[in-house]
Amino acid sequence: MTDSAETDPCSVTIPPLDTDAHEAALDRQATLTKPPGSLGRLETIAADIAAMQSTPKPRVDSAVVITMAGDHGVTAEGVSAYPQSITAAMVANFLDGGAAISALCDANDIANLVVDMGVAGAVPRGVVAHRVADGTANMARGPAMTRGQALESIAAGREVVRTRAADANVIGLGEMGIGNTTASAAITAVVTDSAVDTVTGYGTGIDDGARANKVETIERAIDLNSPDPTDPVDVLGCIGGFEIGGLVGVTLEAASRRMPVVVDGFIAGAAALLATEIDPRVNDYLLGSHASVEPGHDVQLRALDLDPLFDYGMRLGEGTGAAVAIGVYRAACKTHTGMSTFAEAGLVDE
Amino acid sequence: MTDSAETDPCSVTIPPLDTDAHEAALDRQATLTKPPGSLGRLETIAADIAAMQSTPKPRVDSAVVITMAGDHGVTAEGVSAYPQSITAAMVANFLDGGAAISALCDANDIANLVVDMGVAGAVPRGVVAHRVADGTANMARGPAMTRGQALESIAAGREVVRTRAADANVIGLGEMGIGNTTASAAITAVVTDSAVDTVTGYGTGIDDGARANKVETIERAIDLNSPDPTDPVDVLGCIGGFEIGGLVGVTLEAASRRMPVVVDGFIAGAAALLATEIDPRVNDYLLGSHASVEPGHDVQLRALDLDPLFDYGMRLGEGTGAAVAIGVYRAACKTHTGMSTFAEAGLVDE
Repeated sequence: MTDSAETDPCSVTIPPLDTDAHEAALDRQATLTKPPGSLGRLETIAADIAAMQSTPKPRVDSAVVITMAGDHGVTAEGVSAYPQSITAAMVANFLDGGAAISALCDANDIANLVVDMGVAGAVPRGVVAHRVADGTANMARGPAMTRGQALESIAAGREVVRTRAADANVIGLGEMGIGNTTASAAITAVVTDSAVDTVTGYGTGIDDGARANKVETIERAIDLNSPDPTDPVDVLGCIGGFEIGGLVGVTLEAASRRMPVVVDGFIAGAAALLATEIDPRVNDYLLGSHASVEPGHDVQLRALDLDPLFDYGMRLGEGTGAAVAIGVYRAACKTHTGMSTFAEAGLVDE
Repeated sequence: MTDSAETDPCSVTIPPLDTDAHEAALDRQATLTKPPGSLGRLETIAADIAAMQSTPKPRVDSAVVITMAGDHGVTAEGVSAYPQSITAAMVANFLDGGAAISALCDANDIANLVVDMGVAGAVPRGVVAHRVADGTANMARGPAMTRGQALESIAAGREVVRTRAADANVIGLGEMGIGNTTASAAITAVVTDSAVDTVTGYGTGIDDGARANKVETIERAIDLNSPDPTDPVDVLGCIGGFEIGGLVGVTLEAASRRMPVVVDGFIAGAAALLATEIDPRVNDYLLGSHASVEPGHDVQLRALDLDPLFDYGMRLGEGTGAAVAIGVYRAACKTHTGMSTFAEAGLVDE
């Protein structure tokens, strides 16, 4: 399918952060027309992105949120408040510009790339098609996908960045897939060695009884498939999703290109965990966005050492938290690059 | 000077919030293509602004940050790390587009209106001129201004909104004035009946010794001038600043026009406190932005019942926190107005 299908999509070279650029950015901050440190976190953000992009003048002008969609066989176990058909319907809504991520990308001048990684049923017209299969298998009855499919999904994610987002300054991770908080909770439990109950939430809005069933379903899927915690491709294959695998590939490819990756909520966090397991250097290129309502998100943020920019009680996914955060990251870089120095403004630098 | 100089600038009619529009906005939220409540605070923000603007479809498309500048005679007491001349120099920097507020307004497509309310020395060319005087008098030796000057500054703020920002959907409060954290701490102490020491910080970056002097100077100014806490115009006149009075007027006028007012940091907070003392209904139209490093800001936020959107350790002023926050408020309104309903998207509304 993809031109890297025959090579190992997990084999990637991720450059180290540019500490010289980081230092140069901090030096520049000290010359800008404001008391030193008075922009707080906006200053450290600019320096952090400088290190990633390897330039003392980092940019977030061209931003892309990649929203990957896939269906999950585990919905047969009654883990979601919505039927599987909502995934395809929401993909059509993304393409029509009617979804929350559409409005937020419009508000913040961000491109939104919608990718079908394996939505069940008809392929919506106009979507970027990387369909691995017609939804995953039910992980409560067997592995969600084959190892080959897991690798294919990662390769597809890398290809999307390489072919469609190579000019972006920053990438935001987004997703859609009824049932994918179930897969993400399973991945988070396995990768962080946490009890399933502590990382499982109410998803799109199930009740306590349905949540108990969700926890039990995830525990059963983990017992049945015995994913190897030291093998992230095995974890993805046993209990993951095609859109999650795609986001793993997006993250690997973006990091290899020195692009900061803005992690969204709980599902994007699961992908970031797997990508970091594949290559820990990925972590240098991750940026936080929001603190999700999902209880497992906090576990992920601690494992990834990410500090969210805000906590607005969001739990929608699609890349919505990333889209809001990109506005802040852009503002930080714009002050860094756009402000005059004391010398330029003719002010004495004391 | 202003066409309302002969009437009382504190006499203003502030309409009640439109509870019907608030309800209609919440009803609309429930029909949008997302699980109910999944956008968290973005949903409640949209409904709150709907109530202010009296429409079920609120807008933050046209935003103006009004940055008012003035000098403070109290700088003679050594309360700031910077000389008074920096105020005029920074006003020139605002006009040249080289300041942090310039870059942030550029990043978020916000107009920045720079107003000289009483900068000492030469008037920078191109500024909106409402000079009440050549800086305030030293409040440690007598009142900062006369009652007439206090009223004139408020009237000027109202006029700026009326004549230059009447078409805006939202107003952000910004300021510049070496020494104005001293005036703001004094105002906050008097209005909230707090000990001066608890509301006085390090401003632009003074050391512990200079801060002790700042506290002592403020205490002396309050003792000397005995501002009447029940008379906000007296408080402004005894221990305030022209730019603070201007922002009081901006707030009163904006609220009277159903425009949300995004409060910035500690100096804008002092103006918001005074405006709320003049007319408590002003409070319905205030929106928080950031949590400032200044210790008195938290005291203000509690008095104003404002919940900041983020805490990035900022302490610059100029309207920088408001400019970042306006990006979030706009995003909230864009999702609210721009998203499709379940019916429009052809999705079943369950």
